[in-house]
Amino acid sequence: MTRINQRIVLASRPRGEISADNFRLEDAPVPPLAEGELLVKNLWLSLDPYMRGRMDDGKSYAQPQALDKVMEGGTAGEVVESRHPDFKPGDAVVGRLGWQTWAVSNGAGLSKVDAARVPLSAYLGCVGMPGVTAWYGLKQIIAPKAGETVVVSAASGAVGSVVGQLAKAMGCRVVGVAGGPEKCKAVVEEFGFDACIDHRGGDLRQALAQATPNGIDGYFENTGGEILDLVLARMNAFGRIAVCGLIAGYDGQPIPVNNIRAILVSRLKVQGFIISEHPQFWPPALAELGEMVASGRLRYRESVAHGLAAAPEALKGLLKGRNFGKQLVKLG
Amino acid sequence: MTRINQRIVLASRPRGEISADNFRLEDAPVPPLAEGELLVKNLWLSLDPYMRGRMDDGKSYAQPQALDKVMEGGTAGEVVESRHPDFKPGDAVVGRLGWQTWAVSNGAGLSKVDAARVPLSAYLGCVGMPGVTAWYGLKQIIAPKAGETVVVSAASGAVGSVVGQLAKAMGCRVVGVAGGPEKCKAVVEEFGFDACIDHRGGDLRQALAQATPNGIDGYFENTGGEILDLVLARMNAFGRIAVCGLIAGYDGQPIPVNNIRAILVSRLKVQGFIISEHPQFWPPALAELGEMVASGRLRYRESVAHGLAAAPEALKGLLKGRNFGKQLVKLG
Repeated sequence: MTRINQRIVLASRPRGEISADNFRLEDAPVPPLAEGELLVKNLWLSLDPYMRGRMDDGKSYAQPQALDKVMEGGTAGEVVESRHPDFKPGDAVVGRLGWQTWAVSNGAGLSKVDAARVPLSAYLGCVGMPGVTAWYGLKQIIAPKAGETVVVSAASGAVGSVVGQLAKAMGCRVVGVAGGPEKCKAVVEEFGFDACIDHRGGDLRQALAQATPNGIDGYFENTGGEILDLVLARMNAFGRIAVCGLIAGYDGQPIPVNNIRAILVSRLKVQGFIISEHPQFWPPALAELGEMVASGRLRYRESVAHGLAAAPEALKGLLKGRNFGKQLVKLG
Repeated sequence: MTRINQRIVLASRPRGEISADNFRLEDAPVPPLAEGELLVKNLWLSLDPYMRGRMDDGKSYAQPQALDKVMEGGTAGEVVESRHPDFKPGDAVVGRLGWQTWAVSNGAGLSKVDAARVPLSAYLGCVGMPGVTAWYGLKQIIAPKAGETVVVSAASGAVGSVVGQLAKAMGCRVVGVAGGPEKCKAVVEEFGFDACIDHRGGDLRQALAQATPNGIDGYFENTGGEILDLVLARMNAFGRIAVCGLIAGYDGQPIPVNNIRAILVSRLKVQGFIISEHPQFWPPALAELGEMVASGRLRYRESVAHGLAAAPEALKGLLKGRNFGKQLVKLG
């Protein structure tokens, strides 16, 4: 039996927003395994904001996605065949096997996970890269003390929702920023933030002032744009800003910031980071996050698109903020 | 004999640029000394960019300058009378005695200095606050390694010229940014920078690219504005930016920055600092800077205005970049 792999390749680079014709869906036979290889059926594909940056050819922190190659991305799946000593059929694995339904791997970058303790998809979310991103930016850069105020943009997202819950567990006042009343409601009621500001509604400056009566000590930056300027103006002395993602600028438009002077006036530290460059922090972060999910102390939401063909539109929705929580594509 | 003190007080807060009517020159008798006090004849007044910020009433890192009070400022002078056990007539002292020709002090914040080893005025410049500012921002925030490229804005100024000379002594490639061909020439020929870019002339982007063929690892920010955006675009991974002053924004206009995304893309650390908040670094910095000046390894320039009445216009010139090196007012 020849298995057919469905895959999506980058057909062209976007100009501004991504569109359907930047992607091409292809079928290809799955090759037989060589010694030392294993075959994985991908069950979940993770969609993440960084993917938009890699579709461009410009300077960024990673090599651009190659044209006509399978789109890169994190996956969770199940081993179906194995000629590799460390893996056997039935093993649950996470890795970066890309936008495709099947993948042959030599095991590099592939981790076995316990899908009984934590649902498999969570290893792409709060017990995976987004969770570790939240953990590192909050604990290593912002490093808040109990009683301090932490603001989190994209608060309902895969990263932001974890940042807020970790900060609450550290005794902080936590204020989220999210798009729309439904998301804001969930940020407070489900994720336990003290307040959430709807960046689509009303006077943002006033809403932020009311939600942060003692100013802001830490800011976890997931978006860029107007929020950043307003936050800069309310930062307390020696505040810390962790710059994780700037979704507002992923489509290539500049992100003007007017209040950069606050960095001097309030002696701020503003630091960008890419979580893949801090491998030493993954094991302790994943241990803590896994334990919190398993014990029900860390909650999460998922937005699930169905079938590989739905991935481009789902990525577009993610970049527009139409997702709610971790954006996944269910492949299996 | 009643001595008459000439002093300048803040008459009104500026709207935008400062003007002569923001200041008022007054005469007042010098009061007799009480026990524990001393009388200082101020010989030099230091003018510094931070003064503009304090003339406003807005949020900043220091209390605003009070209306109708003597303008605050650093001074160097000579003790004329003393009823204080630690000071005697003839002692050279530096302190913050303000925009006036005479001052009665209780000794708080006043330091005796050796005006034979280093000229008295230098204790207001490269062996004073501007020098320590340069030392701290370079060594504690940028912390460059030999071979790295450091860019310094306002490179001919009291802070920038010291930053560059210290970075050269650490084995860095050092590129200055200054206003006009005369300043740029001096930055290279007198202060030993590898190159200097005239921000008033030509294609800044191209000039910066040519002067920094290996990108930029550290940036000492003294100005704000267009330069910052261009530098952000050329920062290498894990670059460090020390934000010391933002002269371009002191007159109240916003400083738009478009390339904030570079903080994420290049994983930058951007940190603001106020040197008065790091007292533990003053003694080692002053020791090193004093030794470098005394041995001729640290060069400096001064722009001197004559007489207290010239101070407002000299401050205006400083904010416009019309000074060359440390801006002083000679009072004695």
